[in-house]
Amino acid sequence: MNTERPVILVTNDDGVRATGISRLVEALPENADIYVVAPDGPRSAQSSALTMTNLLRIFHHPEMEKEGSNVHWMSVNGTPVDCVKLALHAVVPRTPDICVAGINHGSNAGNSVIYSGTMGAVMEACTLGIPAIGYSLLDHSMNADFSKTLPLVREITEKVIEKGLPRKICLNINFPAGQKIEGIKVVATAESHWTDEYREYTDPSGHKFYLVTGDLINDNPDDAGTDLYWLPRGYATIVPVTPDQTRADMIPRVRDILNV
Amino acid sequence: MNTERPVILVTNDDGVRATGISRLVEALPENADIYVVAPDGPRSAQSSALTMTNLLRIFHHPEMEKEGSNVHWMSVNGTPVDCVKLALHAVVPRTPDICVAGINHGSNAGNSVIYSGTMGAVMEACTLGIPAIGYSLLDHSMNADFSKTLPLVREITEKVIEKGLPRKICLNINFPAGQKIEGIKVVATAESHWTDEYREYTDPSGHKFYLVTGDLINDNPDDAGTDLYWLPRGYATIVPVTPDQTRADMIPRVRDILNV
Repeated sequence: MNTERPVILVTNDDGVRATGISRLVEALPENADIYVVAPDGPRSAQSSALTMTNLLRIFHHPEMEKEGSNVHWMSVNGTPVDCVKLALHAVVPRTPDICVAGINHGSNAGNSVIYSGTMGAVMEACTLGIPAIGYSLLDHSMNADFSKTLPLVREITEKVIEKGLPRKICLNINFPAGQKIEGIKVVATAESHWTDEYREYTDPSGHKFYLVTGDLINDNPDDAGTDLYWLPRGYATIVPVTPDQTRADMIPRVRDILNV
Repeated sequence: MNTERPVILVTNDDGVRATGISRLVEALPENADIYVVAPDGPRSAQSSALTMTNLLRIFHHPEMEKEGSNVHWMSVNGTPVDCVKLALHAVVPRTPDICVAGINHGSNAGNSVIYSGTMGAVMEACTLGIPAIGYSLLDHSMNADFSKTLPLVREITEKVIEKGLPRKICLNINFPAGQKIEGIKVVATAESHWTDEYREYTDPSGHKFYLVTGDLINDNPDDAGTDLYWLPRGYATIVPVTPDQTRADMIPRVRDILNV
Protein backbone atom coordinates (compact mmCIF):
# COMPACT_ATOMS: atom_id res chain seq x y z
CA MET A 1 0.00 0.00 0.00
CA ASN A 2 1.21 3.46 -0.91
CA THR A 3 1.46 5.43 2.33
CA GLU A 4 2.68 8.65 0.70
CA ARG A 5 0.23 11.54 0.88
CA PRO A 6 -1.57 11.97 -2.45
CA VAL A 7 -0.74 15.09 -4.47
CA ILE A 8 -3.81 16.63 -6.12
CA LEU A 9 -3.78 19.32 -8.79
CA VAL A 10 -6.95 21.42 -8.98
CA THR A 11 -7.95 23.83 -11.72
CA ASN A 12 -11.01 25.21 -13.52
CA ASP A 13 -12.02 27.65 -16.24
CA ASP A 14 -14.21 29.97 -14.15
CA GLY A 15 -11.18 31.41 -12.38
CA VAL A 16 -9.55 31.06 -8.99
CA ARG A 17 -12.25 33.20 -7.28
CA ALA A 18 -15.21 31.09 -8.48
CA THR A 19 -17.37 29.38 -5.86
CA GLY A 20 -17.14 26.05 -7.69
CA ILE A 21 -13.41 25.61 -7.20
CA SER A 22 -13.63 26.39 -3.46
CA ARG A 23 -16.37 23.80 -3.06
CA LEU A 24 -14.35 21.28 -5.07
CA VAL A 25 -11.38 21.77 -2.74
CA GLU A 26 -13.66 21.24 0.29
CA ALA A 27 -14.70 17.88 -1.14
CA LEU A 28 -11.14 16.56 -1.55
CA PRO A 29 -9.50 14.14 0.90
CA GLU A 30 -7.87 15.86 3.94
CA ASN A 31 -4.85 13.57 3.83
CA ALA A 32 -3.70 15.02 0.48
CA ASP A 33 -1.38 17.85 -0.56
CA ILE A 34 -3.58 20.04 -2.73
CA TYR A 35 -2.27 22.53 -5.29
CA VAL A 36 -4.83 24.88 -6.81
CA VAL A 37 -3.47 26.45 -10.01
CA ALA A 38 -6.39 28.15 -11.75
CA PRO A 39 -6.83 31.05 -14.20
CA ASP A 40 -6.77 34.52 -12.62
CA GLY A 41 -10.21 35.22 -14.11
CA PRO A 42 -12.92 33.54 -16.20
CA ARG A 43 -11.63 31.50 -19.16
CA SER A 44 -14.76 29.68 -20.30
CA ALA A 45 -14.78 28.04 -23.74
CA GLN A 46 -10.98 28.14 -24.02
CA SER A 47 -10.83 24.46 -25.03
CA SER A 48 -7.18 23.31 -25.23
CA ALA A 49 -5.91 26.79 -26.11
CA LEU A 50 -2.40 27.84 -25.10
CA THR A 51 -1.19 31.37 -24.43
CA MET A 52 1.43 31.94 -27.12
CA THR A 53 1.90 35.70 -27.33
CA ASN A 54 1.73 36.91 -23.72
CA LEU A 55 4.13 36.37 -20.88
CA LEU A 56 2.72 34.03 -18.27
CA ARG A 57 2.97 34.67 -14.54
CA ILE A 58 2.16 32.55 -11.49
CA PHE A 59 0.52 34.43 -8.62
CA HIS A 60 0.54 33.06 -5.07
CA HIS A 61 -2.52 33.71 -2.91
CA PRO A 62 -1.51 33.43 0.76
CA GLU A 63 -4.64 35.45 1.58
CA MET A 64 -6.69 32.43 0.48
CA GLU A 65 -4.72 29.91 2.56
CA LYS A 66 -5.50 28.96 6.14
CA GLU A 67 -2.47 28.64 8.42
CA GLY A 68 -1.06 25.12 8.34
CA SER A 69 -3.46 24.18 5.58
CA ASN A 70 -2.73 21.40 3.11
CA VAL A 71 -4.15 23.57 0.30
CA HIS A 72 -1.88 25.87 -1.74
CA TRP A 73 -3.65 28.53 -3.81
CA MET A 74 -2.14 29.94 -7.02
CA SER A 75 -3.38 31.54 -10.21
CA VAL A 76 -2.01 32.05 -13.73
CA ASN A 77 -2.87 34.78 -16.23
CA GLY A 78 -3.58 32.19 -18.90
CA THR A 79 -5.85 29.41 -20.05
CA PRO A 80 -6.77 26.25 -18.12
CA VAL A 81 -4.24 24.26 -20.19
CA ASP A 82 -1.55 26.84 -19.36
CA CYS A 83 -2.43 26.28 -15.69
CA VAL A 84 -1.92 22.51 -15.92
CA LYS A 85 1.30 22.77 -17.91
CA LEU A 86 2.80 25.51 -15.72
CA ALA A 87 1.74 23.72 -12.54
CA LEU A 88 3.64 20.65 -13.70
CA HIS A 89 6.62 22.76 -14.76
CA ALA A 90 6.96 25.03 -11.76
CA VAL A 91 4.52 24.32 -8.90
CA VAL A 92 3.86 20.74 -7.83
CA PRO A 93 6.63 18.86 -6.00
CA ARG A 94 6.02 15.68 -8.02
CA THR A 95 3.63 14.34 -10.66
CA PRO A 96 0.14 14.58 -9.13
CA ASP A 97 -1.87 11.44 -8.41
CA ILE A 98 -4.92 13.09 -9.92
CA CYS A 99 -6.01 16.32 -11.56
CA VAL A 100 -9.55 17.53 -10.86
CA ALA A 101 -11.16 20.49 -12.60
CA GLY A 102 -14.28 22.46 -11.72
CA ILE A 103 -16.74 22.39 -10.26
CA ASN A 104 -17.79 24.19 -13.42
CA HIS A 105 -20.63 26.69 -13.19
CA GLY A 106 -22.67 25.29 -16.08
CA SER A 107 -22.95 22.16 -18.21
CA ASN A 108 -20.13 20.50 -20.11
CA ALA A 109 -22.42 17.77 -21.45
CA GLY A 110 -23.14 17.06 -25.11
CA ASN A 111 -20.75 18.63 -27.56
CA SER A 112 -19.85 21.39 -25.08
CA VAL A 113 -16.96 19.13 -24.13
CA ILE A 114 -14.89 20.19 -27.17
CA TYR A 115 -15.08 23.91 -26.27
CA SER A 116 -14.82 23.57 -22.49
CA GLY A 117 -11.76 25.04 -20.80
CA THR A 118 -12.46 22.79 -17.82
CA MET A 119 -12.29 19.73 -20.05
CA GLY A 120 -9.29 21.23 -21.91
CA ALA A 121 -7.40 21.13 -18.60
CA VAL A 122 -8.59 17.57 -17.96
CA MET A 123 -7.52 16.45 -21.46
CA GLU A 124 -4.10 18.04 -20.88
CA ALA A 125 -3.54 16.22 -17.61
CA CYS A 126 -4.67 12.98 -19.29
CA THR A 127 -2.20 13.56 -22.14
CA LEU A 128 0.52 13.90 -19.51
CA GLY A 129 -0.46 10.53 -17.99
CA ILE A 130 -2.29 11.92 -14.93
CA PRO A 131 -5.74 10.50 -14.04
CA ALA A 132 -8.09 13.44 -14.57
CA ILE A 133 -11.73 14.33 -13.97
CA GLY A 134 -13.82 17.36 -14.90
CA TYR A 135 -16.81 18.14 -12.67
CA SER A 136 -19.63 20.43 -13.80
CA LEU A 137 -22.97 21.49 -12.32
CA LEU A 138 -25.86 22.45 -14.61
CA ASP A 139 -26.26 25.83 -12.95
CA HIS A 140 -24.49 28.88 -14.40
CA SER A 141 -25.18 31.17 -11.45
CA MET A 142 -22.26 32.37 -9.37
CA ASN A 143 -24.32 31.43 -6.27
CA ALA A 144 -25.02 27.90 -7.50
CA ASP A 145 -25.61 25.38 -4.71
CA PHE A 146 -22.92 22.71 -5.04
CA SER A 147 -23.65 20.97 -1.73
CA LYS A 148 -25.46 17.92 -3.10
CA THR A 149 -22.54 17.22 -5.48
CA LEU A 150 -19.81 17.19 -2.83
CA PRO A 151 -20.26 13.64 -1.44
CA LEU A 152 -20.16 12.25 -4.99
CA VAL A 153 -17.13 14.37 -5.91
CA ARG A 154 -15.28 13.02 -2.89
CA GLU A 155 -16.27 9.40 -3.50
CA ILE A 156 -15.38 9.44 -7.21
CA THR A 157 -12.12 11.32 -6.67
CA GLU A 158 -11.02 8.88 -3.95
CA LYS A 159 -11.84 5.87 -6.13
CA VAL A 160 -9.83 7.25 -9.03
CA ILE A 161 -6.87 8.08 -6.76
CA GLU A 162 -7.02 4.49 -5.53
CA LYS A 163 -7.63 2.64 -8.80
CA GLY A 164 -6.49 5.01 -11.58
CA LEU A 165 -8.13 5.26 -14.98
CA PRO A 166 -7.45 3.44 -18.25
CA ARG A 167 -4.58 4.86 -20.33
CA LYS A 168 -5.53 8.02 -22.28
CA ILE A 169 -9.02 8.04 -20.74
CA CYS A 170 -10.37 10.85 -18.56
CA LEU A 171 -13.85 11.59 -17.20
CA ASN A 172 -16.41 14.27 -18.03
CA ILE A 173 -18.82 14.32 -15.08
CA ASN A 174 -21.94 16.50 -15.04
CA PHE A 175 -24.36 16.98 -12.15
CA PRO A 176 -28.01 17.92 -12.69
CA ALA A 177 -29.46 21.15 -11.36
CA GLY A 178 -32.08 20.81 -8.64
CA GLN A 179 -32.22 19.56 -5.10
CA LYS A 180 -31.67 15.83 -5.56
CA ILE A 181 -29.45 13.52 -7.63
CA GLU A 182 -31.49 10.46 -8.68
CA GLY A 183 -28.46 8.31 -9.47
CA ILE A 184 -25.35 8.03 -11.64
CA LYS A 185 -25.14 6.89 -15.26
CA VAL A 186 -21.89 6.08 -17.12
CA VAL A 187 -22.83 6.91 -20.70
CA ALA A 188 -21.63 8.42 -24.00
CA THR A 189 -21.61 12.06 -25.10
CA ALA A 190 -24.92 12.89 -26.79
CA GLU A 191 -24.61 13.90 -30.42
CA SER A 192 -25.77 17.46 -30.34
CA HIS A 193 -25.42 20.82 -32.04
CA TRP A 194 -25.85 24.52 -31.33
CA THR A 195 -28.49 26.72 -32.93
CA ASP A 196 -28.85 30.50 -33.15
CA GLU A 197 -25.23 30.91 -32.16
CA TYR A 198 -24.91 34.69 -32.52
CA ARG A 199 -26.91 37.73 -31.67
CA GLU A 200 -26.32 40.66 -34.02
CA TYR A 201 -26.01 44.22 -32.65
CA THR A 202 -25.29 47.66 -34.08
CA ASP A 203 -22.74 49.81 -32.25
CA PRO A 204 -23.14 53.59 -31.72
CA SER A 205 -21.16 54.21 -34.96
CA GLY A 206 -23.55 52.07 -36.99
CA HIS A 207 -21.22 49.05 -37.35
CA LYS A 208 -22.43 45.52 -36.77
CA PHE A 209 -21.01 43.29 -34.08
CA TYR A 210 -21.84 39.83 -32.78
CA LEU A 211 -22.01 38.13 -29.39
CA VAL A 212 -22.02 34.38 -29.02
CA THR A 213 -25.16 32.74 -27.59
CA GLY A 214 -27.19 29.71 -28.68
CA ASP A 215 -29.01 26.59 -27.59
CA LEU A 216 -27.61 23.08 -27.44
CA ILE A 217 -29.94 20.68 -29.28
CA ASN A 218 -29.83 16.94 -28.57
CA ASP A 219 -29.80 15.20 -31.98
CA ASN A 220 -31.09 11.90 -30.53
CA PRO A 221 -33.28 12.85 -27.58
CA ASP A 222 -34.53 9.29 -27.02
CA ASP A 223 -31.06 7.73 -26.77
CA ALA A 224 -30.82 6.53 -23.15
CA GLY A 225 -27.10 5.83 -23.65
CA THR A 226 -26.16 9.52 -23.53
CA ASP A 227 -25.52 12.32 -21.05
CA LEU A 228 -28.14 14.71 -22.45
CA TYR A 229 -30.81 12.04 -21.90
CA TRP A 230 -30.14 11.55 -18.19
CA LEU A 231 -29.21 15.02 -16.94
CA PRO A 232 -32.70 16.55 -17.38
CA ARG A 233 -34.05 13.44 -15.62
CA GLY A 234 -32.05 14.29 -12.50
CA TYR A 235 -29.13 11.87 -12.92
CA ALA A 236 -25.41 12.64 -12.75
CA THR A 237 -23.56 11.49 -15.88
CA ILE A 238 -20.02 10.19 -16.30
CA VAL A 239 -18.57 10.04 -19.82
CA PRO A 240 -15.18 8.46 -20.60
CA VAL A 241 -13.40 10.76 -23.09
CA THR A 242 -9.95 10.86 -24.67
CA PRO A 243 -7.64 13.59 -25.93
CA ASP A 244 -6.66 11.34 -28.86
CA GLN A 245 -8.94 12.32 -31.74
CA THR A 246 -7.50 9.81 -34.23
CA ARG A 247 -9.97 7.41 -35.87
CA ALA A 248 -7.56 4.74 -37.05
CA ASP A 249 -10.52 2.54 -38.06
CA MET A 250 -11.24 5.06 -40.83
CA ILE A 251 -7.82 4.77 -42.52
CA PRO A 252 -8.98 2.23 -45.16
CA ARG A 253 -12.03 4.34 -46.08
CA VAL A 254 -9.96 7.49 -46.41
CA ARG A 255 -7.43 5.65 -48.61
CA ASP A 256 -10.32 4.54 -50.78
CA ILE A 257 -11.89 8.03 -51.04
CA LEU A 258 -8.58 9.70 -51.89
CA ASN A 259 -7.30 6.80 -53.99
CA VAL A 260 -3.90 6.84 -52.26
CA MET B 1 -24.53 15.06 -61.33
CA ASN B 2 -24.56 18.25 -59.29
CA THR B 3 -23.93 21.14 -61.68
CA GLU B 4 -24.13 23.86 -59.00
CA ARG B 5 -20.86 25.71 -58.37
CA PRO B 6 -19.21 24.40 -55.21
CA VAL B 7 -19.09 26.75 -52.21
CA ILE B 8 -15.78 26.57 -50.34
CA LEU B 9 -15.08 28.06 -46.90
CA VAL B 10 -11.41 28.82 -46.22
CA THR B 11 -9.84 29.70 -42.88
CA ASN B 12 -6.61 29.32 -40.92
CA ASP B 13 -4.99 30.23 -37.60
CA ASP B 14 -2.05 32.27 -38.91
CA GLY B 15 -4.36 35.12 -39.93
CA VAL B 16 -5.81 36.48 -43.14
CA ARG B 17 -2.46 38.05 -44.20
CA ALA B 18 -0.43 34.83 -43.94
CA THR B 19 1.20 33.48 -47.10
CA GLY B 20 -0.20 30.00 -46.49
CA ILE B 21 -3.85 31.00 -46.87
CA SER B 22 -3.18 32.86 -50.14
CA ARG B 23 -1.42 29.81 -51.54
CA LEU B 24 -4.27 27.57 -50.37
CA VAL B 25 -6.77 29.76 -52.22
CA GLU B 26 -4.63 29.55 -55.39
CA ALA B 27 -4.82 25.75 -55.22
CA LEU B 28 -8.63 25.63 -55.06
CA PRO B 29 -10.83 24.84 -58.07
CA GLU B 30 -11.62 27.89 -60.27
CA ASN B 31 -15.24 26.84 -60.76
CA ALA B 32 -16.03 27.39 -57.05
CA ASP B 33 -17.35 30.29 -55.00
CA ILE B 34 -14.69 30.78 -52.36
CA TYR B 35 -15.24 32.55 -49.03
CA VAL B 36 -12.16 33.28 -46.97
CA VAL B 37 -13.11 34.06 -43.35
CA ALA B 38 -9.91 34.02 -41.31
CA PRO B 39 -8.67 35.61 -38.08
CA ASP B 40 -7.50 39.23 -38.40
CA GLY B 41 -4.11 38.22 -36.96
CA PRO B 42 -2.23 35.16 -35.69
CA ARG B 43 -4.28 32.78 -33.53
CA SER B 44 -1.99 29.77 -33.24
CA ALA B 45 -2.71 27.16 -30.55
CA GLN B 46 -6.28 28.40 -30.05
CA SER B 47 -7.68 24.85 -30.31
CA SER B 48 -11.51 24.96 -30.31
CA ALA B 49 -11.63 28.16 -28.24
CA LEU B 50 -14.54 30.58 -28.63
CA THR B 51 -14.49 34.31 -28.00
CA MET B 52 -16.93 34.78 -25.11
CA THR B 53 -16.14 38.18 -23.64
CA ASN B 54 -15.36 40.41 -26.65
CA LEU B 55 -17.66 41.67 -29.34
CA LEU B 56 -16.94 40.01 -32.68
CA ARG B 57 -16.75 41.89 -35.97
CA ILE B 58 -16.51 40.78 -39.58
CA PHE B 59 -14.17 42.88 -41.74
CA HIS B 60 -14.46 42.85 -45.55
CA HIS B 61 -11.23 43.13 -47.55
CA PRO B 62 -12.06 44.44 -51.03
CA GLU B 63 -8.39 45.47 -51.31
CA MET B 64 -7.51 41.76 -51.40
CA GLU B 65 -10.07 40.89 -54.09
CA LYS B 66 -9.43 40.99 -57.82
CA GLU B 67 -12.26 42.47 -59.89
CA GLY B 68 -14.76 39.81 -60.93
CA SER B 69 -12.95 37.25 -58.77
CA ASN B 70 -14.70 34.20 -57.34
CA VAL B 71 -12.82 34.73 -54.05
CA HIS B 72 -14.32 36.82 -51.23
CA TRP B 73 -11.89 37.89 -48.50
CA MET B 74 -13.04 38.57 -44.93
CA SER B 75 -11.53 38.51 -41.45
CA VAL B 76 -12.85 38.23 -37.89
CA ASN B 77 -11.30 39.53 -34.66
CA GLY B 78 -11.63 36.11 -33.08
CA THR B 79 -10.47 32.52 -33.05
CA PRO B 80 -10.52 30.08 -35.98
CA VAL B 81 -13.69 28.46 -34.56
CA ASP B 82 -15.33 31.90 -34.31
CA CYS B 83 -14.48 32.33 -38.01
CA VAL B 84 -16.20 29.10 -39.02
CA LYS B 85 -19.26 29.72 -36.88
CA LEU B 86 -19.65 33.37 -37.92
CA ALA B 87 -19.06 32.50 -41.58
CA LEU B 88 -21.92 30.02 -41.40
CA HIS B 89 -24.10 32.50 -39.53
CA ALA B 90 -23.50 35.63 -41.57
CA VAL B 91 -21.27 35.16 -44.64
CA VAL B 92 -21.75 32.13 -46.89
CA PRO B 93 -24.88 31.99 -49.08
CA ARG B 94 -25.48 28.30 -48.28
CA THR B 95 -23.80 25.44 -46.38
CA PRO B 96 -20.34 25.03 -47.94
CA ASP B 97 -19.44 21.85 -49.80
CA ILE B 98 -16.12 21.81 -48.01
CA CYS B 99 -14.11 23.75 -45.43
CA VAL B 100 -10.34 23.88 -45.90
CA ALA B 101 -7.95 25.40 -43.36
CA GLY B 102 -4.32 26.40 -43.73
CA ILE B 103 -1.95 26.04 -45.25
CA ASN B 104 -0.53 26.23 -41.75
CA HIS B 105 2.97 27.59 -41.29
CA GLY B 106 4.28 24.71 -39.15
CA SER B 107 3.39 21.15 -38.21
CA ASN B 108 0.07 19.95 -36.82
CA ALA B 109 1.27 16.34 -36.60
CA GLY B 110 1.50 14.26 -33.44
CA ASN B 111 -0.39 15.60 -30.46
CA SER B 112 -0.19 19.17 -31.83
CA VAL B 113 -3.61 18.43 -33.32
CA ILE B 114 -5.38 19.04 -29.99
CA TYR B 115 -3.93 22.57 -29.59
CA SER B 116 -4.07 23.62 -33.24
CA GLY B 117 -6.37 26.48 -34.18
CA THR B 118 -6.27 25.26 -37.76
CA MET B 119 -7.56 21.87 -36.67
CA GLY B 120 -10.01 23.55 -34.26
CA ALA B 121 -11.64 25.19 -37.29
CA VAL B 122 -11.64 21.85 -39.14
CA MET B 123 -13.22 20.05 -36.17
CA GLU B 124 -15.89 22.77 -35.97
CA ALA B 125 -16.83 22.44 -39.64
CA CYS B 126 -16.91 18.65 -39.20
CA THR B 127 -19.22 19.00 -36.19
CA LEU B 128 -21.51 21.07 -38.39
CA GLY B 129 -21.61 18.29 -41.01
CA ILE B 130 -19.26 19.94 -43.52
CA PRO B 131 -16.42 17.86 -45.05
CA ALA B 132 -13.27 19.51 -43.70
CA ILE B 133 -9.51 19.31 -44.19
CA GLY B 134 -6.60 20.99 -42.41
CA TYR B 135 -3.40 21.45 -44.42
CA SER B 136 -0.05 22.18 -42.75
CA LEU B 137 3.53 22.51 -43.99
CA LEU B 138 6.43 21.65 -41.69
CA ASP B 139 8.01 25.07 -42.14
CA HIS B 140 7.26 27.86 -39.66
CA SER B 141 8.83 30.63 -41.71
CA MET B 142 6.58 33.32 -43.10
CA ASN B 143 8.41 32.86 -46.45
CA ALA B 144 7.84 29.11 -46.51
CA ASP B 145 7.72 27.63 -50.02
CA PHE B 146 4.29 26.03 -50.43
CA SER B 147 4.59 25.36 -54.17
CA LYS B 148 5.20 21.62 -54.00
CA THR B 149 2.10 21.16 -51.82
CA LEU B 150 -0.33 22.92 -54.16
CA PRO B 151 -1.00 20.10 -56.69
CA LEU B 152 -1.74 17.71 -53.81
CA VAL B 153 -3.97 20.27 -52.06
CA ARG B 154 -5.97 20.70 -55.24
CA GLU B 155 -6.25 16.98 -55.93
CA ILE B 156 -7.28 16.05 -52.39
CA THR B 157 -9.73 18.96 -52.08
CA GLU B 158 -11.40 18.08 -55.38
CA LYS B 159 -11.73 14.42 -54.40
CA VAL B 160 -13.34 15.32 -51.08
CA ILE B 161 -15.73 17.78 -52.76
CA GLU B 162 -16.71 14.97 -55.12
CA LYS B 163 -16.90 12.05 -52.70
CA GLY B 164 -17.35 13.60 -49.24
CA LEU B 165 -15.93 12.13 -46.05
CA PRO B 166 -17.36 9.64 -43.55
CA ARG B 167 -19.71 11.13 -40.96
CA LYS B 168 -17.91 12.97 -38.11
CA ILE B 169 -14.52 12.37 -39.75
CA CYS B 170 -12.19 15.14 -40.93
CA LEU B 171 -8.61 15.11 -42.16
CA ASN B 172 -5.36 16.38 -40.64
CA ILE B 173 -2.89 16.61 -43.55
CA ASN B 174 0.76 17.54 -43.03
CA PHE B 175 3.36 18.13 -45.74
CA PRO B 176 7.09 17.59 -45.12
CA ALA B 177 9.59 20.41 -45.38
CA GLY B 178 12.11 20.17 -48.21
CA GLN B 179 12.03 20.20 -51.98
CA LYS B 180 10.26 16.93 -52.75
CA ILE B 181 7.29 14.91 -51.44
CA GLU B 182 8.16 11.20 -51.60
CA GLY B 183 4.56 10.02 -51.40
CA ILE B 184 1.39 10.07 -49.28
CA LYS B 185 0.62 7.92 -46.22
CA VAL B 186 -2.81 7.63 -44.56
CA VAL B 187 -1.86 6.86 -40.97
CA ALA B 188 -2.68 7.48 -37.27
CA THR B 189 -1.57 10.34 -35.02
CA ALA B 190 1.72 9.42 -33.35
CA GLU B 191 1.55 9.19 -29.58
CA SER B 192 3.81 11.99 -28.53
CA HIS B 193 4.46 14.53 -25.80
CA TRP B 194 6.13 17.88 -25.26
CA THR B 195 9.26 18.45 -23.18
CA ASP B 196 10.81 21.59 -21.73
CA GLU B 197 7.59 23.46 -22.29
CA TYR B 198 8.50 26.77 -20.67
CA ARG B 199 11.44 29.10 -20.55
CA GLU B 200 11.72 31.10 -17.35
CA TYR B 201 12.67 34.78 -17.40
CA THR B 202 13.02 37.59 -14.87
CA ASP B 203 11.43 40.93 -15.72
CA PRO B 204 13.06 44.33 -14.98
CA SER B 205 11.24 44.43 -11.61
CA GLY B 206 12.65 41.08 -10.55
CA HIS B 207 9.46 39.06 -11.09
CA LYS B 208 9.47 35.73 -12.89
CA PHE B 209 7.55 35.13 -16.10
CA TYR B 210 7.29 32.24 -18.53
CA LEU B 211 7.08 31.82 -22.29
CA VAL B 212 5.89 28.62 -23.90
CA THR B 213 8.39 26.63 -25.97
CA GLY B 214 9.25 22.92 -26.08
CA ASP B 215 10.01 19.94 -28.28
CA LEU B 216 7.55 17.34 -29.51
CA ILE B 217 8.85 13.85 -28.71
CA ASN B 218 7.58 10.82 -30.62
CA ASP B 219 6.80 8.14 -28.00
CA ASN B 220 6.99 5.29 -30.53
CA PRO B 221 9.55 6.40 -33.12
CA ASP B 222 9.61 3.02 -34.93
CA ASP B 223 5.83 2.86 -35.47
CA ALA B 224 5.41 3.10 -39.25
CA GLY B 225 1.66 3.51 -38.81
CA THR B 226 1.98 7.13 -37.63
CA ASP B 227 2.44 10.64 -38.98
CA LEU B 228 5.60 11.43 -37.03
CA TYR B 229 7.29 8.39 -38.60
CA TRP B 230 6.71 9.42 -42.21
CA LEU B 231 7.04 13.22 -42.16
CA PRO B 232 10.80 13.27 -41.43
CA ARG B 233 11.16 10.68 -44.22
CA GLY B 234 9.73 13.12 -46.75
CA TYR B 235 6.16 11.79 -47.00
CA ALA B 236 2.91 13.75 -46.68
CA THR B 237 0.61 12.29 -44.01
CA ILE B 238 -3.18 12.15 -43.85
CA VAL B 239 -4.80 11.32 -40.50
CA PRO B 240 -8.56 10.77 -40.09
CA VAL B 241 -9.64 12.55 -36.90
CA THR B 242 -12.94 13.24 -35.16
CA PRO B 243 -14.31 15.99 -32.93
CA ASP B 244 -16.13 13.33 -30.87
CA GLN B 245 -13.82 12.49 -27.97
CA THR B 246 -16.15 9.93 -26.38
CA ARG B 247 -14.71 6.47 -25.77
CA ALA B 248 -17.93 4.49 -25.42
CA ASP B 249 -15.92 1.23 -25.38
CA MET B 250 -14.57 2.31 -21.96
CA ILE B 251 -18.00 2.61 -20.29
CA PRO B 252 -17.89 -0.90 -18.73
CA ARG B 253 -14.38 -0.35 -17.32
CA VAL B 254 -15.32 3.00 -15.84
CA ARG B 255 -18.44 1.46 -14.26
CA ASP B 256 -16.19 -1.18 -12.76
CA ILE B 257 -13.59 1.29 -11.42
CA LEU B 258 -16.22 3.57 -9.88
CA ASN B 259 -18.49 0.73 -8.81
CA VAL B 260 -21.60 2.47 -10.20
